Parts: sequence; structure tokens; C-alpha cells
Amino acid sequence: MTVPIAQRMSRIGTETAFAVSLEAANLARQGKKIYPFHLGDMNIITPSVIMDAAIEAMKKGKTGYCPTAGIPELREALAKDVGQSHKISLAAENVSIQPGGKPAISKFILAGMNPGDKVLYPNPGYPIYESQIEFHGGAGMPYGYKEAEDHFILDMEAIRKGIRDGARILIYNNCQNPTGASSSKDEMEELARLALQNDMLVLADEAYFDICYSGETLSIAGFPGMAERTIILYTFSKKFAMTGWRLGAAIGPIQFIENISKINVNDESCSNHFIQYGALAGLQGSSEGPQKILSILKERRDLLVDRLNRIPGVRCFRPEATFYLFPNVTGAMKRKGVADVEEFRKLVLQETGVSFCTRRHFGRPLPGETEQYIRFAYSGIDADQIKEGMDKLAGFLK
Amino acid sequence: MTVPIAQRMSRIGTETAFAVSLEAANLARQGKKIYPFHLGDMNIITPSVIMDAAIEAMKKGKTGYCPTAGIPELREALAKDVGQSHKISLAAENVSIQPGGKPAISKFILAGMNPGDKVLYPNPGYPIYESQIEFHGGAGMPYGYKEAEDHFILDMEAIRKGIRDGARILIYNNCQNPTGASSSKDEMEELARLALQNDMLVLADEAYFDICYSGETLSIAGFPGMAERTIILYTFSKKFAMTGWRLGAAIGPIQFIENISKINVNDESCSNHFIQYGALAGLQGSSEGPQKILSILKERRDLLVDRLNRIPGVRCFRPEATFYLFPNVTGAMKRKGVADVEEFRKLVLQETGVSFCTRRHFGRPLPGETEQYIRFAYSGIDADQIKEGMDKLAGFLK
Repeated sequence: MTVPIAQRMSRIGTETAFAVSLEAANLARQGKKIYPFHLGDMNIITPSVIMDAAIEAMKKGKTGYCPTAGIPELREALAKDVGQSHKISLAAENVSIQPGGKPAISKFILAGMNPGDKVLYPNPGYPIYESQIEFHGGAGMPYGYKEAEDHFILDMEAIRKGIRDGARILIYNNCQNPTGASSSKDEMEELARLALQNDMLVLADEAYFDICYSGETLSIAGFPGMAERTIILYTFSKKFAMTGWRLGAAIGPIQFIENISKINVNDESCSNHFIQYGALAGLQGSSEGPQKILSILKERRDLLVDRLNRIPGVRCFRPEATFYLFPNVTGAMKRKGVADVEEFRKLVLQETGVSFCTRRHFGRPLPGETEQYIRFAYSGIDADQIKEGMDKLAGFLK
Repeated sequence: MTVPIAQRMSRIGTETAFAVSLEAANLARQGKKIYPFHLGDMNIITPSVIMDAAIEAMKKGKTGYCPTAGIPELREALAKDVGQSHKISLAAENVSIQPGGKPAISKFILAGMNPGDKVLYPNPGYPIYESQIEFHGGAGMPYGYKEAEDHFILDMEAIRKGIRDGARILIYNNCQNPTGASSSKDEMEELARLALQNDMLVLADEAYFDICYSGETLSIAGFPGMAERTIILYTFSKKFAMTGWRLGAAIGPIQFIENISKINVNDESCSNHFIQYGALAGLQGSSEGPQKILSILKERRDLLVDRLNRIPGVRCFRPEATFYLFPNVTGAMKRKGVADVEEFRKLVLQETGVSFCTRRHFGRPLPGETEQYIRFAYSGIDADQIKEGMDKLAGFLK
């Protein structure tokens, strides 16, 4: 028998970046030295204050179910923490703890989007937005980014056009994967104005909110009238190097958050109980752990940006947020006589062991795109390996 | 602004049993002594071999992402373990690790059910089946259980009628919540025959497969031709007292399992990494931990069944599986002059502190139902408290 598969499965996407991991792993098995810039995982261990608290809770028997929306202490602490950083008023009831930040995407879509609804989402962007929109019967409307002098800016015209065409839901990933873009106050204010004016529902994917190397991160939820219509995707993954723990939250208007928790009752009952005490210790503890993580990442960023910009035909911004770089390699590809960016990626991987993703892993190219980009993640590779990898890359592209 | 909520949210259900917990907790806060028979959580701590292995993995840095479908070692070990207990051939590729057993329900529905599809599910039964079917646009077709001499049997006529009416998907919860029913070999064989004959897709919710006090549990996946069309819901929650760890699996035909993992990529990336090493140690370790858990539960069962059957107007089977009892209280309700089973529950709770669920928490009553049932869970209450609670209940109902 061939088991029948539901039709919606033909509309679900994936993270094609995993395929790059596989290619890299296969080469590594053949003895090739790999420089892993392809995946946004972290090779930094979780701060011990978090591990200790989780272990203590486990041993104290916090091994049974906890409330669906999370332990009250963590919901309260997170409401306080995010309330302060966002300058908005939040209570525990605004917070629904999730098994990761990612679950907030599907639950936002399920609770807020009807089949046929038009949804604006970034492209290049995290491929899961488009996948979830289409999986649950919505119509994705991509908007891109443009190069300004020294940073990426939103293609605001594409957003305006999407709204004119009927989009009433906006997915916005400030501190963006893959571009590293973070909005200026003016840009975000304009986006908030559009959202308010058009009565839009907003998912603010703030997975990298705390991975910010200078100044203060802004949140669209902090603009007047926006907290009432914005669901924040929060994660413990990056700030506390807890990617594999799978703990995050959806934060927003109480009624919407209650609907999200109702999906949790149906999908997973609750998130792991004892690790929530670990996260709580992280939030309440000193900022030493997160600061150490940030300083490691900043050193890597500067090293990598400097080295990339020394390579002819490569142009790379120095983003103030995320642990991603999105260098323009149009020139380098021309010099090598390669027209296709995936071909370029495979060639570089084969020849140098330097493994990265490309623009293609972050959505279907938009009409009129002419520049070529690749994406480096520097969360999973140490400084000495960055140097070694960049030497090889520079040698190959010289 | 009132945030718009998607229409599908009007079709999602919940576990109304949580409302009973709330009522009990409120009474407890007022100083009332509560005997908690309402929730299927466990007051037994996870075996230390599992905790130790999880802690070791955490400290060794298994805090980053792992493969979406789980660490290969756990997938292999589970394939071997379930393959042996079910007498079927399973490989790692047949296993997708999930953040709990419950996630296998929604993913089974999403991957296997089209909108409009008719799905047979047990009622009384775990309320999440009906909720997920309707949430994702299917049509639920409930089938009930009937009292035989000393155990519950499937209402096979209702199942046959559902198939005649077009159902091609079957949800089957052997070792059933709330009735405690487990099928005889004949009954399961007949069900398998119907599934084969009508080319059905089956979800075998085996959350309580290992909570079996005598003989050997059967699985419908073990009947000829059934492994190819059956998705097994597996959980570490009950056997290893790991309810709050949130770890389980979907096990079945490779193509279907790959589709389930694809949903995992979209919904949660992966399950918590380091706890998978804990579960692996549980599977590979001695059976001492699970056996101890079983012997504690069996003692409670016998105590509770004996005491319940001494109460006039109460008739309770002694199920060989699960940690639930589903006593018939039609007579006791008549003696008290109470016609509504929820009213009966509230009266008993108020007067005695004995807190339980009723048939109503497990689905809408079916046409023609005349008998009244309540549900006791004995996984979260010690023997001495069972005795004390039963004394109070007997006193009130005498």
C-alpha cells in the first residue's frame, strides 16, 4: 500500500540550508576540512547558571506537566524583561511559553490567518514564513531588501504594493536572517504607520533582538498603537546559547495569546517543565553570560567582515545585529565566470571547504533581482577557523 | 483594536479536564483537602539513570540543534525496542522523534487528512482527536465503547457504520483513556480486517502501551498488512514517568514519517537535544525503573478498584492497562437524586474533596447513552491518599 498523503503536504516547504549541512558532512567524511558558515547553530555552550538551575529543577521533580502557557514565574519574568526592553506594558498573561521561537510562527499563522489571506513576508528571509503561509492556505506576498550605502533597507515600495493588493498581515523580522538588517527608527516608524493605517496584524520575529552589537534594538511593538496588534516571537536560543533546548515564547495581546496557548493544548500540552527554571535563572541572573556570548560573536563578525571585504568582487556590510552576513558576490562570480550562485557555492565548497548558504536558501528570487548574494553564519565557527577559511577563500577568489 | 482571530479557531477544542484542576486548586487554596484523581499526570519521579544521562549530555554541550527527526542513536534504539515489542520490522527511518506523544496526533492529521475527510475516533476518548480533526477541516465520526461482562469492548457496529458512511481514517487508542479498555486479540483482528478491507490509514495511539499489568499488549500494527498503514504514537511519558520532559515519537511507514518530520522542520526544528540521551539511557538501561513504576501503579489500581466496588451504586472494571478507571455511577447518582454527571462531580468534590473527571470531559455524549460514568486517574495520588479519599467518598455515597 502507498499511504495517502494529504494535499497540503504539497504546499509545505523546508529549510533547504539543511541540504548544505548534508553536503558539508559528506565532504567531511571524505576527509575534506570544512569551514562551517552554513548553519545558524552556535558552538558556544549555554551559561552554567542556566544549566545548574535546570538540573536542580529536574532533580526536585519538576518532571511532570506544567501549565500549557508555561510556569507562571517564567511568564512573569519574561513579561518584565521584554516589557522593559521594549518600553511596553506586559503581564504574564501576554506571554505563552513555546518549545522554541519557531513554534510562534505556525501558531501565529494558524490563529491569525484565514485560507486565502494575503500575508507580507520578507524574501530573502527565513524560509519557514512562506512555507507556513502556504501550508495553511494563505497567499504569501514577498518583499525584499535593498542595498543602501552601508546597510540593507526594506523595500518599502513592495510593502506598500502588497498592502494595496490586499495584504492585512505582515511578517517583519527586524535583525534579519539572512541580511543582518535592522531598521532605523525612521524606517520602523514608517512601517508602523502603514500597519496602523491599514489595520494590520503583525508578527515581529525578534529571534535576534538581543544579538545587537551597538546601540539599542528597536521593536515595532514599541511604537504607539502597535503592541495591540503585534505578536512578538521571542527565543532563548541566541541570547543564552540555548538553540538545542527548544524554548521560546509568543508575546502579544492577551486574546491572541490565549488562542495560541489553545493550540499548544492541542499540539504539545506544554513545553519541557524543568528547563523553564533554567531559562528563568538566565533572565534573572547577571548579564555576564549573554555579554560573553555577544563579545565572542562581535569579534567573529569584525574578523569575518574585514576579511571578506579584502576579497576582490566581494562587498560585505557590517550589520549591527544577528550573527549573519549577506555579502554581495556578483563581482567575484563574474571573475570566476560562474553565473549561478548555487554553482558558485558548490565550487567554493569543493575547492576550499568553505561552506555557506546562498540567497536561494532564503526564498525564490524576486523579479528584477540582478545582484548575487551568499550568506555566512558565524555563530558556529571559532575565530582561528574563520581566519583559516578566509585565507583559503581569498586564495581561491584572488 | 480587537485582533482578528482566524475562523479555524472556532473549531478547536481543548482538554476540559484542566478546568477540573482549576476548580480543585481553588478549593485547595480555601483550605479544602483534595484527593486528586482528575489528571493523568504522575507523582512518580523519572528514573535516575535517565536524569543522569540527560545531565551528562547537557554538560557535554549537547545544547545545540540536533537533526529534526531526532538523534540517530535514539531513533535506532526506539526502532529496535518497538520492533521487538510489536513483532514488526522497523529501522531508524521509521521513527520521527517528537516533543511529546501528543504532537504525533496533529502531525498525523496534517499529513494524512484532507479537509472534508471523515475520521473515526473514540468517544469517550482523548478530546484532542476530535479537536484536531475539526481544527484542520475534517469530519469526526465518533465510535463508543460498550460494557461486556468484566471489561469495555469497542462498539464495532459504530465503526462499521462509519466505514459505510465513508470514513477512511481510523484513530484507535488501545489501552484507552478514559475507559482503560484494551482489545482482545479477536477484537483487534476484526478491526485490522476492516482497516485492510477498506484501505484505511490508522493512527494507533499507544501512549499507554507499556502500562500493562498482565499479559502482553497487542498492537494493531503487528497484524499482517497493518504496519504499512499504521502510524504509532509512542511516548516516553508514562513508561519512564517523563510526562513533563515532553518526548515521544511517531513511528510508521517511511514516506509518511518523512512527511511528519517535514512538519517538524516547519513547526519546531527539532526536539530538545540533550534529553534524547536521557531517553536513550532509559531504553537501553535495565527494566528496573519501568517495573517499579508499574508495580506502584498496580497497587494503586487494585486498591482503588476494590474500594470503588464496595460503594453502593458504583460498578468498576479492573482494566489490565492504563492508569485510569471508568466506573459506572448510574446507581449512585440515582441514590443521591442527581441526574447530571457534572453536577454529581461538583457535589462530590465540594462535599468530600475527591476530584475526578466525568464522561463529559471525553467528548459529547453519543445518541442513546443512558449510563453515567466518571473517570479516575491514579497516576498522581499515593495509596494512603487513595484510601483516605475512598473512605470519604464511601461515607458520602453510603
